[in-house]
Amino acid sequence: MPEHTAASRLRLSGLCFLLQILNILLFAVFVRYSPESSPGRCPPQLDCSRRNQDSGFQQPRFQDVHIQVLLSFGLLVVFLGRYGPGSAAVSILVVAFAIQWAVLIRGFFYFFLNGKVYVGAQSMVSADFSTAAVLISTGAVLGRVNPVQMLLLALLEVTVCTLNEYILLGLMGVSDSGRSLTVHTFGAYFGLMVSRVLYQPHKDKRKREERQDTGQQADVFAVVGTIYLWIFWPSFTSATTVHDNAENWAVLNTYFSLVASTIATFILSPVLCEESTPPMVQIQDATLAGMAVMGMAGEMLVTPFGALIAGFLAGLISPLGFRFFTPILRSRLKIQDTCGVHNTHGLPGILGALLGTLLTLLATADTYGDRLELVFPLMAQGSRAVTDQAFIQLSALPLTLLLAALGGYLTG
Amino acid sequence: MPEHTAASRLRLSGLCFLLQILNILLFAVFVRYSPESSPGRCPPQLDCSRRNQDSGFQQPRFQDVHIQVLLSFGLLVVFLGRYGPGSAAVSILVVAFAIQWAVLIRGFFYFFLNGKVYVGAQSMVSADFSTAAVLISTGAVLGRVNPVQMLLLALLEVTVCTLNEYILLGLMGVSDSGRSLTVHTFGAYFGLMVSRVLYQPHKDKRKREERQDTGQQADVFAVVGTIYLWIFWPSFTSATTVHDNAENWAVLNTYFSLVASTIATFILSPVLCEESTPPMVQIQDATLAGMAVMGMAGEMLVTPFGALIAGFLAGLISPLGFRFFTPILRSRLKIQDTCGVHNTHGLPGILGALLGTLLTLLATADTYGDRLELVFPLMAQGSRAVTDQAFIQLSALPLTLLLAALGGYLTG
Amino acid sequence: MPEHTAASRLRLSGLCFLLQILNILLFAVFVRYSPESSPGRCPPQLDCSRRNQDSGFQQPRFQDVHIQVLLSFGLLVVFLGRYGPGSAAVSILVVAFAIQWAVLIRGFFYFFLNGKVYVGAQSMVSADFSTAAVLISTGAVLGRVNPVQMLLLALLEVTVCTLNEYILLGLMGVSDSGRSLTVHTFGAYFGLMVSRVLYQPHKDKRKREERQDTGQQADVFAVVGTIYLWIFWPSFTSATTVHDNAENWAVLNTYFSLVASTIATFILSPVLCEESTPPMVQIQDATLAGMAVMGMAGEMLVTPFGALIAGFLAGLISPLGFRFFTPILRSRLKIQDTCGVHNTHGLPGILGALLGTLLTLLATADTYGDRLELVFPLMAQGSRAVTDQAFIQLSALPLTLLLAALGGYLTG
Repeated sequence: MPEHTAASRLRLSGLCFLLQILNILLFAVFVRYSPESSPGRCPPQLDCSRRNQDSGFQQPRFQDVHIQVLLSFGLLVVFLGRYGPGSAAVSILVVAFAIQWAVLIRGFFYFFLNGKVYVGAQSMVSADFSTAAVLISTGAVLGRVNPVQMLLLALLEVTVCTLNEYILLGLMGVSDSGRSLTVHTFGAYFGLMVSRVLYQPHKDKRKREERQDTGQQADVFAVVGTIYLWIFWPSFTSATTVHDNAENWAVLNTYFSLVASTIATFILSPVLCEESTPPMVQIQDATLAGMAVMGMAGEMLVTPFGALIAGFLAGLISPLGFRFFTPILRSRLKIQDTCGVHNTHGLPGILGALLGTLLTLLATADTYGDRLELVFPLMAQGSRAVTDQAFIQLSALPLTLLLAALGGYLTG
Repeated sequence: MPEHTAASRLRLSGLCFLLQILNILLFAVFVRYSPESSPGRCPPQLDCSRRNQDSGFQQPRFQDVHIQVLLSFGLLVVFLGRYGPGSAAVSILVVAFAIQWAVLIRGFFYFFLNGKVYVGAQSMVSADFSTAAVLISTGAVLGRVNPVQMLLLALLEVTVCTLNEYILLGLMGVSDSGRSLTVHTFGAYFGLMVSRVLYQPHKDKRKREERQDTGQQADVFAVVGTIYLWIFWPSFTSATTVHDNAENWAVLNTYFSLVASTIATFILSPVLCEESTPPMVQIQDATLAGMAVMGMAGEMLVTPFGALIAGFLAGLISPLGFRFFTPILRSRLKIQDTCGVHNTHGLPGILGALLGTLLTLLATADTYGDRLELVFPLMAQGSRAVTDQAFIQLSALPLTLLLAALGGYLTG
Repeated sequence: MPEHTAASRLRLSGLCFLLQILNILLFAVFVRYSPESSPGRCPPQLDCSRRNQDSGFQQPRFQDVHIQVLLSFGLLVVFLGRYGPGSAAVSILVVAFAIQWAVLIRGFFYFFLNGKVYVGAQSMVSADFSTAAVLISTGAVLGRVNPVQMLLLALLEVTVCTLNEYILLGLMGVSDSGRSLTVHTFGAYFGLMVSRVLYQPHKDKRKREERQDTGQQADVFAVVGTIYLWIFWPSFTSATTVHDNAENWAVLNTYFSLVASTIATFILSPVLCEESTPPMVQIQDATLAGMAVMGMAGEMLVTPFGALIAGFLAGLISPLGFRFFTPILRSRLKIQDTCGVHNTHGLPGILGALLGTLLTLLATADTYGDRLELVFPLMAQGSRAVTDQAFIQLSALPLTLLLAALGGYLTG
């Protein structure tokens, strides 16, 4: 970018240096490896036996950590398809910083025992969830903020996002294992709000042109990104679900949802775009939408056709959103949504939350059997009625929207 | 493609819509999550204790499911190298449809108990095997059929392929854990037969030109595809083998076969192509051939050098096939084999089946030890002699060829 | 390459043929699948109970094998970013040969019992470590040696590298679980020495130009390579660590190191390169450096901030090396380092070894607890003092450098 003068370059360099030194100091003072890393021993304060609402203290398998941490990169690959490798360097910087910061912030909220933050494999997975939210928000403002602003955005969003997660999962006991709300919806609306505040009408056209000329490569990246998402996302959705029983279903539900949303794209595309086969970027968006919708409900669905229907609806909503919503957003609300995060993460995330609420209402000990205790621990213990849980699931949605909008506004 | 008018576009859209609605209805009526997903409980009808010939009822590890489902994408990536990202959208549509359909069809053949089809992680893996066969067939006709025909091809092939698998593995008790026969050989000859029926002489030259101009990118895709196959295919070959003992060997055998077939390509390439190093696409084909040959024998081989020899032969056969067979196929039999599936899947698959038969003949309780029961359960129980098993393994080959040719002819 | 005449082509073909036949014969005579593949049975000679210094006899999980073998390809992808797909074919040939050869050579050193070499999953992992060292060396001479020379280099380097590993890990009892010394440092200096011997001043400029014109694609490959390394390398570093406890920490340490070294690149880049964001290739190098430094220390570090500091230092060293060391190497020592392996593998490897020594000095039964026995088995048994172990760790560094230089000189 030509406007980057020597001063601004050094500002980025200096900011990175300060933040990294700050991180190292904070880690040195507060962070220790969790004794939970050594299996078999568990300090009495942690109460390892119960399934924490945040699923914090169950031992994720070694392999899971790897697969989780790369999820952010799935998103990154996806955005590359839109903006080319030029923005990759900045995205990696954001990821590198956001992971450290999220480990710290999450530690302060959850793991503050005896003045030390204990981290383990689970902390990395959770930190990565926050990083994913940051990347989704980044998608909405990509190309309009400089790296320094991007870092500050990551700094603030990780904080608000962790706060939101803490309230929803830790205090209210909402079931959101695949993070429909706390990652997809939060990330999308946070990014949109920042985009709203940073609205610059004259930059609109220039960016549009820049985006055009990556045409050929964008297609290649979209293919790679789609395959990547198909492979790894189902394990993302199921990362924090119970490992013995429910996990299997969350994975299968995600696959069925994916498949249906992909076919939905092929149905709508000829009608909306006047092309016989949809461009790869649309298929990628449908894939993302099919995954976002399964976030909350993935653990709850007890029939495969439910997943097919949900994915099908999400696959229909996403292209319709691009066709009808994005122009309205742009012209009326003055929100530029560079990568269309509203349609691929925002709307399906809300749909997923509504679906989760519906499924919670339908949840009975009969259909769930032993799994009830794992999916809704509070209900199984008898301390919460079905309708209460459903109301709490539902009320988590406006709360998330509110926090996201507020946080985005302040950040902007 | 310019010949796609508005009508044909809407036909694809409508067909997708109909098929998806049909799938959702069939899933709603018939498909439920299998109680096998909840470990420890197993309905008496399913007889969970024995190792089913189809390996249907053993619990695959959670991770395996992911790795399996992406195997189709490995193939997809490979074909991209040949045809560029243009055909990716259609391939993904085919995959998305074939997985659903294969779950249904397989369910009807295998799991029809109490009027419900029970699906679990194993169903997804098996459905993915069928999808792989469809993608192999697709490789033979790519560029000559439109998306609507592609969908119908997937519809029919999944049905015939599942029938073939049911006869071979379920009824005859053939050992084919890595699917040399039921995926590679079947897929290749099914596709060739369809190609034969759809023969259009005047289109030959135009396609050839189209294929040329993806030169630079094809190389990149071939590199990525080869790496992808090296990484993930060994776990494909070993997916349905016994998990405690034999698996280890199937994986190692596949690696040794791979390595030898790659070097074989380097030996033949200077002789046949007059180039010092073979083009990446040939290395990729050798990789595929080295894998196809290990399909049936991977579980059976008890010495590493056997795998080296088998891979070496497969690596020699594949380039020779391209040099001498493909022209004959094209001119005499009027079969256009767009992606050379005959040489990379067909011939090595047959070689693998013959090797499997040979190894079955040599199998004695002495060399196998405890593993005999796992690899050839019927023989270990004493209900079948070595020669009987070998004869059955051998007879599975012409049966597969017959079914593939018949199915392909009808489909065409 | 135009200088390849018919004779040289056939020479490569013949050499491949000879080596492959030799491999098959050697495998046929010596190599059998290890009885360790069948869990529960262990021949008395193998003494399965103790944790071998080479970690030879613990059972790696099935999944690990896959992830290991692909690590070489991670490196391969990285070098593609530098040289384009043209060199990919030769690299794959080298990998295919080196894996077979390494299995043989390692077998002769370690597993020679009763006249047979027993191979198992662990052998593949170890063979892959040697292959990685070969690929690193290859990076230093890429573009200046023909395929035949490359094969001979692989032949010799695998032998010397395995000898080095045997002396360090098997005889001296050095702890180097992530192979800072035996892979990174050895590979880098072996390659540099070969490069020194093969110095051809007139070729310098031509290569430089060749390298320039892959500009656009190099960026794409660098992005893919970086993501690939982030995903898979942490499991490389932790492959041979103890599986119950320490592994978790090695993985987390690697991630923290990675993150810090990435940010360090962003700090230095504006100062050194006068660009606001560093080019992707530099980020990739920082990633590699952050990993190399964690090789030895990954298992030993007991605090996350230690990993942050180590990664931060490695991330600072690597760009400084490119800026100040590479010109000196080129002009004074007449060493052309095509892919900069000195800065990405050599220097961080040495740093990692020094860090490992320091940590060994600090290791007390107090901070390690039960893990002491796993990380330093000899010290836990009381047969070796802390200072002795530290001295041995330190002395492994010059020994490795000496062997690498000697081997490289002879090979050149």
